[in-house]
Amino acid sequence: MKTEIITSGTELLLGEITDVNTPYIAGELAALGIDLYYTSAVGDNYERFSGVLRQAWERSDLIIITGGLGPTQGDITRNVIAGLLGEALTIDPGLKREITAFFTGRGIEMPENNFRQATLIPSAAALRNASGTAPGWWVEKDGKIIVTLPGPPGEMQEMWQTQVLPRLKSSSGAIILSRTLKAWGLSEAKVDQLVSPYLAAANPTLALYARQDGINLRITAKAATEAAAHDIVLAREREIREIMGQYIWGVDDQTMEGEIGRRLNPMKHTLAVSESFTGGLLAYSLAGVPGSQSYFRGGIILPVSVDECSAAAADKKAETVRARFNTDIGMAVEGYYEIAGKTAGGRAFIAVNRASGRQATTVDYPGKPPQVVRRIINHALVYLMNSLT
Amino acid sequence: MKTEIITSGTELLLGEITDVNTPYIAGELAALGIDLYYTSAVGDNYERFSGVLRQAWERSDLIIITGGLGPTQGDITRNVIAGLLGEALTIDPGLKREITAFFTGRGIEMPENNFRQATLIPSAAALRNASGTAPGWWVEKDGKIIVTLPGPPGEMQEMWQTQVLPRLKSSSGAIILSRTLKAWGLSEAKVDQLVSPYLAAANPTLALYARQDGINLRITAKAATEAAAHDIVLAREREIREIMGQYIWGVDDQTMEGEIGRRLNPMKHTLAVSESFTGGLLAYSLAGVPGSQSYFRGGIILPVSVDECSAAAADKKAETVRARFNTDIGMAVEGYYEIAGKTAGGRAFIAVNRASGRQATTVDYPGKPPQVVRRIINHALVYLMNSLT
Repeated sequence: MKTEIITSGTELLLGEITDVNTPYIAGELAALGIDLYYTSAVGDNYERFSGVLRQAWERSDLIIITGGLGPTQGDITRNVIAGLLGEALTIDPGLKREITAFFTGRGIEMPENNFRQATLIPSAAALRNASGTAPGWWVEKDGKIIVTLPGPPGEMQEMWQTQVLPRLKSSSGAIILSRTLKAWGLSEAKVDQLVSPYLAAANPTLALYARQDGINLRITAKAATEAAAHDIVLAREREIREIMGQYIWGVDDQTMEGEIGRRLNPMKHTLAVSESFTGGLLAYSLAGVPGSQSYFRGGIILPVSVDECSAAAADKKAETVRARFNTDIGMAVEGYYEIAGKTAGGRAFIAVNRASGRQATTVDYPGKPPQVVRRIINHALVYLMNSLT
Repeated sequence: MKTEIITSGTELLLGEITDVNTPYIAGELAALGIDLYYTSAVGDNYERFSGVLRQAWERSDLIIITGGLGPTQGDITRNVIAGLLGEALTIDPGLKREITAFFTGRGIEMPENNFRQATLIPSAAALRNASGTAPGWWVEKDGKIIVTLPGPPGEMQEMWQTQVLPRLKSSSGAIILSRTLKAWGLSEAKVDQLVSPYLAAANPTLALYARQDGINLRITAKAATEAAAHDIVLAREREIREIMGQYIWGVDDQTMEGEIGRRLNPMKHTLAVSESFTGGLLAYSLAGVPGSQSYFRGGIILPVSVDECSAAAADKKAETVRARFNTDIGMAVEGYYEIAGKTAGGRAFIAVNRASGRQATTVDYPGKPPQVVRRIINHALVYLMNSLT
């Protein structure tokens, strides 16, 4: 079923609001295994809206429209659909009663405008709106479907869950399942090269995304049952881990700092950190994990000059901060940022100190702050995480 | 100039990310007085992307495309444009050198894939990417313009501000001048109320944006000469400052921490900070300012329990951290986050200590971490800034 989403509202084209309805509906469609090919936004202009809808009608089987169902003259979604299908808008007595009741229930008179919201065309069935006065439409004609939903995300989502989703589920057959592997330490191009054959596969699909926490690899499988979809995802995950498993630090919505907490908690080990040019980002990342109070005991930020920076100095600082905060683990990230010719980058000395021993590494990243600082802290977090196994 | 935006990326159609580039660009176009008629999203599919671009080419004068500039096989924006215009993609030696330098600076070999990012067509000029390897394009042909920008919002916005905006300004006949006033301490609805009459004005326009650093008020004037536009902006700025001047802490691209540095530097005063539940964000903000080494001497992060938190404790910590780091100014932000019934929020005790005296304030913000932490740190930064006059 080829699907597209149209969001309507001049406020979208003025950048006054961010469209959160499209990603919501897109995610819901993906979970149903329904192919979404296009999304577009259009203003409250009859001619342009009609043009966009006519094109959608020609190329898609299912069209989902949000917005433009209000009582004002600027709300033209109903008119545009009636125009496309050549059907007349008439006031539906049942809808009129419901909308009138909405107002009398609140003890206020209904503005005449609101009758616009009680209109239907012969091909449309009304979708009830539990929290507003704008009913949606479910239109079926010539083997195609148009769904209209209100713009306010709360009303839209409720109508989606209670009325649209059940109708769509009964018309789709497959189960779709996704899992995201998260890698640090390889460029996007390198990952692309390593998993290249899988990127062309149709089921499961594999997609790469560059994110702040590295490269995300998303595996998506389609199957008749949930168990079958799960098996397809798992088999591909195994193959990818064979190729680049040592770079994968997490899955789905895991974070580096959250994963550190998940490992530290059962060990009952505590942690303190020392930083220089990363300025507190290591501490801030660790402290931001809910429940981190049980293991994160604090940090020191002490900017130092380039010539004070060394692996030995970092090692010493990891030891000192462990003693200062009386923790099981002391970690230091010391380093500097410099511009040499046209190349900017940072070098960091990372050290971890425990009663049982010490570890250290040195890392270089290109780029400018704050990106280079973020990359060095990610590297340090993964380094710490790997020491906690 | 009829304009449309195309965002590309299958992740948009799967609902994995929310498109924040479209509202950003839409807002920028509105401020320039450029009409945006359509926006659409399309996946990484050559045929469908080409169809959407061909339609845009037929109905619009300016087409702005975000995403699809990465090094992978899924990144097809360059290919789709080359296909539309019937021009050949060739590797540009200058771009190749720059991308190679990005990798050699990092001490690793460049994956062959990345050469895709060094390609151009005859009608395209490259837009430099200061923080990544994906250059954008500025394409002019047959009186129409196509602009390509990278998908990551940070890279996109930097390229927009430094390279696209100046070109668009010079291609519109009139001079367009903007100035943004930055306010902290008032809600968007309150600012909207205060400046309400100016929001309807046509020249200068006034637009409000809720940003991480508070409410931004952007004044945009159009005039035949730069001097005339400047006068229009300045007159409106004066009027706004009369109404709410005490809340305005900066303009344009100023940051709170940068403004603190700008004031501290000539005073030759040094600063150290102490934090608890803000976890290092105060230090990280201050340390991130280029040149901050000359005045920012470091910080301590020490999570404390709710009952250890008080105005007196913060005052003591500001004094202690000043002594510990031997600075002119010591600052402490101590506090806690709590959920009481349905209400979540943070309370912070802020103290500033100098040889000449001490200052303190207590502040409550609603919300959840990390937003509430960010708001408290913003409040602390403005508090410190105001003490530096």
